[in-house]
Amino acid sequence: MNEPRPLSIPVILGTPRQGRLSEHVARVMVEELCKRDGVQTALIDVRELPLSAMDAGEQIKDPQFSEQVMRADGLVIVAPEYNHGYPGILKHALDTNLKEYIHKPVGLCGVSAGGFGGTRVIESLLPVMRELGLVTIFWDVNVSSAGKVFDADGKLLDPALPRRVDKMLSELLWMARVLRYGREHIAVD
Amino acid sequence: MNEPRPLSIPVILGTPRQGRLSEHVARVMVEELCKRDGVQTALIDVRELPLSAMDAGEQIKDPQFSEQVMRADGLVIVAPEYNHGYPGILKHALDTNLKEYIHKPVGLCGVSAGGFGGTRVIESLLPVMRELGLVTIFWDVNVSSAGKVFDADGKLLDPALPRRVDKMLSELLWMARVLRYGREHIAVD
Amino acid sequence: MNEPRPLSIPVILGTPRQGRLSEHVARVMVEELCKRDGVQTALIDVRELPLSAMDAGEQIKDPQFSEQVMRADGLVIVAPEYNHGYPGILKHALDTNLKEYIHKPVGLCGVSAGGFGGTRVIESLLPVMRELGLVTIFWDVNVSSAGKVFDADGKLLDPALPRRVDKMLSELLWMARVLRYGREHIAVD
Amino acid sequence: MNEPRPLSIPVILGTPRQGRLSEHVARVMVEELCKRDGVQTALIDVRELPLSAMDAGEQIKDPQFSEQVMRADGLVIVAPEYNHGYPGILKHALDTNLKEYIHKPVGLCGVSAGGFGGTRVIESLLPVMRELGLVTIFWDVNVSSAGKVFDADGKLLDPALPRRVDKMLSELLWMARVLRYGREHIAVD
Repeated sequence: MNEPRPLSIPVILGTPRQGRLSEHVARVMVEELCKRDGVQTALIDVRELPLSAMDAGEQIKDPQFSEQVMRADGLVIVAPEYNHGYPGILKHALDTNLKEYIHKPVGLCGVSAGGFGGTRVIESLLPVMRELGLVTIFWDVNVSSAGKVFDADGKLLDPALPRRVDKMLSELLWMARVLRYGREHIAVD
Repeated sequence: MNEPRPLSIPVILGTPRQGRLSEHVARVMVEELCKRDGVQTALIDVRELPLSAMDAGEQIKDPQFSEQVMRADGLVIVAPEYNHGYPGILKHALDTNLKEYIHKPVGLCGVSAGGFGGTRVIESLLPVMRELGLVTIFWDVNVSSAGKVFDADGKLLDPALPRRVDKMLSELLWMARVLRYGREHIAVD
Repeated sequence: MNEPRPLSIPVILGTPRQGRLSEHVARVMVEELCKRDGVQTALIDVRELPLSAMDAGEQIKDPQFSEQVMRADGLVIVAPEYNHGYPGILKHALDTNLKEYIHKPVGLCGVSAGGFGGTRVIESLLPVMRELGLVTIFWDVNVSSAGKVFDADGKLLDPALPRRVDKMLSELLWMARVLRYGREHIAVD
Repeated sequence: MNEPRPLSIPVILGTPRQGRLSEHVARVMVEELCKRDGVQTALIDVRELPLSAMDAGEQIKDPQFSEQVMRADGLVIVAPEYNHGYPGILKHALDTNLKEYIHKPVGLCGVSAGGFGGTRVIESLLPVMRELGLVTIFWDVNVSSAGKVFDADGKLLDPALPRRVDKMLSELLWMARVLRYGREHIAVD
């Protein structure tokens, strides 16, 4: 297949919390994406988004964030699990866009200090992803005991993580190509 | 686009319960699908599937059911909401297949005797659909107060239902075309 | 039963969004609670909580909010449904407490501009409530088409709402009494 | 506190599937319950329930099952995770009762062949438990890699499991005592 342009797959780092280990996980995601031919990526850190806590939904869009999502062919979301749900600030940020997401795939990565790989934050994101128009692929990355996967300086200690990231990315990139083809070439009846 | 063959979109009627109103809803689904050019459909009634209650997962596959799903390009599932979850017999049937579902879209239709259109059965099916490899589209059909939508003989009383079904089918058929193109033409890296 | 002191049941208004209709719903909750003998209430508006968006979980507790929850015998949460999930700012606020919630009941009220009464925000809150240590009662308040339930000045147009609130409150107050008895009189083995 | 009679806490083994490892887990549950003073238990095996697959909801009640649940002061449900949801036969059985469950606590145990301890079957049961009138406690038992926790004869290999079961049972029995007090002594307003 002759691809018209690189696939754009930004990585959303889904928590501003101090001491966040998700930051290291998101960095691995970006690194693995950079190794792929024909793929562009960028880190979108919810900590850096200038969003008002005085919510007004789509009316408080950050133009740069919205444009990045609009141009994207797919997303990765790295989300720690807080009390079996998603971080509030991640949801606050996601809710500022809508049409930007439609018919694009998303790969989810749950991060947990405990043993269950953030499975519950992933489950809780599924209905939200769908309502935003995103297609959640069926392959996830689950990071358990995040405090043991990286050392205090953020150096990766678990060599299996990049492999697991890669497996998810293969599925995500496939779906990104398929849905881009669909958005560009297949009409709705 | 030159389509190689008709799209096959069976409708799964997801409950064997006596007096089920979902039967009428599934019939409307089949009728609307039959009106579409280039689409084939069939009703798969979980009441008719010869599945052992002595569960053995994929080992109790019904060959005909599995073949229908294997040949399908997408599915519609009509599911009543029982105690805010899915009917057990529907899940028992769905669990007998796996690879048959992969990279195919599914449109969900929730049916409720009450006021909320089966939203909760739809939410509860999302993680299951995903794990099966199905892509749940973001447009649903919600049937509230099912006892008022049809008369005692199953005659449709609510003229808006076919229109709402059609809206969902447009999205489902688009996704079915897109994913079929992907399954047949786009390789996984 | 000789109650030692009034039951304290604050109402959390779960969105800061401009033009929020949930504000009117929360006011009805407070009014109905005020009619009950032996019950104290207060409105906790997430818009007013001085929480840093620079998240640090429990370390950014607002002392007054935490004390209100600590003293509470139960909670009501009024939450609009945003993209089939909870408002980010609500979750951000809830995550600043933990032990304050344990073994207390919560009554959920979903608010929606559409037709399904916020059923999906309620479903998405269930795992979070549980992990916080709260007991979600099995009776909800669902407000559909919120824009028709109140006029532009916030005047209540739907006389059925207070009755539905009351039904939920009866269950909530029962559970609040039961769990308070348990916290005060029954030891853990 | 002078307890009027033993607490009755049956254990529901939630799958009939051949080769089920959940059977061993349920046996550990029963054994740990038997060690507790003032507690009675019994195993309810969904494989043994004479339920028609020709569903009719509460009309296909098994009288003995319903009576056991009616007499119960709390339940334990041991459920394997099938495709990120609950076993169909478990749901089919649970849906045959309703008033039998009201205001009783349930402790959930997820069983998985994989690494995440059945967290997803537990999340998927939460809305169902609530709608049935059960109170899901906030302490679970998660059994990961079930094939390594027991040997081929069902002998327990992991000495930590009974301790983890015990921790859940302490919370469950507390809640069972509290809710029994409530059912018997506290009136609804």
